Amino acid sequence: MHGTLTDLVLPPDGRQSEAALAIRRGALRYVAARGLVGVPELVLGTGRRADIAVLCAKGEVWVIEVKSSIADFRADHKWFEYRAFCDRLFFAVAPDFPLDILPEDTGILVADGFGAALVREAPRHPLVAHQRKALTLRLARCAAGRLMGLMDPEALRGIEL
Amino acid sequence: MHGTLTDLVLPPDGRQSEAALAIRRGALRYVAARGLVGVPELVLGTGRRADIAVLCAKGEVWVIEVKSSIADFRADHKWFEYRAFCDRLFFAVAPDFPLDILPEDTGILVADGFGAALVREAPRHPLVAHQRKALTLRLARCAAGRLMGLMDPEALRGIEL
Repeated sequence: MHGTLTDLVLPPDGRQSEAALAIRRGALRYVAARGLVGVPELVLGTGRRADIAVLCAKGEVWVIEVKSSIADFRADHKWFEYRAFCDRLFFAVAPDFPLDILPEDTGILVADGFGAALVREAPRHPLVAHQRKALTLRLARCAAGRLMGLMDPEALRGIEL
Repeated sequence: MHGTLTDLVLPPDGRQSEAALAIRRGALRYVAARGLVGVPELVLGTGRRADIAVLCAKGEVWVIEVKSSIADFRADHKWFEYRAFCDRLFFAVAPDFPLDILPEDTGILVADGFGAALVREAPRHPLVAHQRKALTLRLARCAAGRLMGLMDPEALRGIEL
């Protein structure tokens, strides 16, 4: 039942390994425990997807990039592009990930499937107001649209939000 | 299955009649068909709930109040308070509702469980920017938080977003 719901909220797209999904779940629990909300797989203006986009109570936007292995991290030559879409950028990695290979000016969450711990706070590099507004709208439309699709799949047939 | 999902997205709170739920569904389909998103039962700053809060592509916020009967409309002596929380205010009513009793300066949707038609566009009474920002954040947090609860009920145990 739970698996089915998860599938409906986010149809599996084959991009995430089991390990990455566990880290994502733990990171989202950390987000919830701080009283914040996170939307997985948010498509950004460039067409890239943020693994988790976080919206803070006062409107700050974070991106959390999930890296399930050293290879996964090394294969991503464009992680710095996410900086243009957030006020703070974090990596979320498994407990056995070598933290010293992560870029210094980013935050670090160490996560497993049950939760996450903040190992390093992310420095703030504030978005300009119109970018933050556009991202907040994008995040809101994504989350509300997914909910609408769950409540009434028929309502979204053939519609692109 | 569909019913179960709906229940999980929005636990029934006994406030909405079957007739009101049908109108709400039809109104939400109209919202989706316009490429907009709507969040049902959004709690506002005053503690009141908007039946549907709509977020438009460029950030305009609408409230749609569902009235399932003449009695339901007449019992609501505070509908005008919603105006302070939106750029446009609509009533959504069933096809047999007498439209001439609705306030003139509001929009009208006539809805059933399958969809809705716009009978009268709502006049625009723009929010000031900081109010719109606060409402957008509230709507985003509500939708994303409900999604988080669906994906991982454990994550939100004891947490108030």
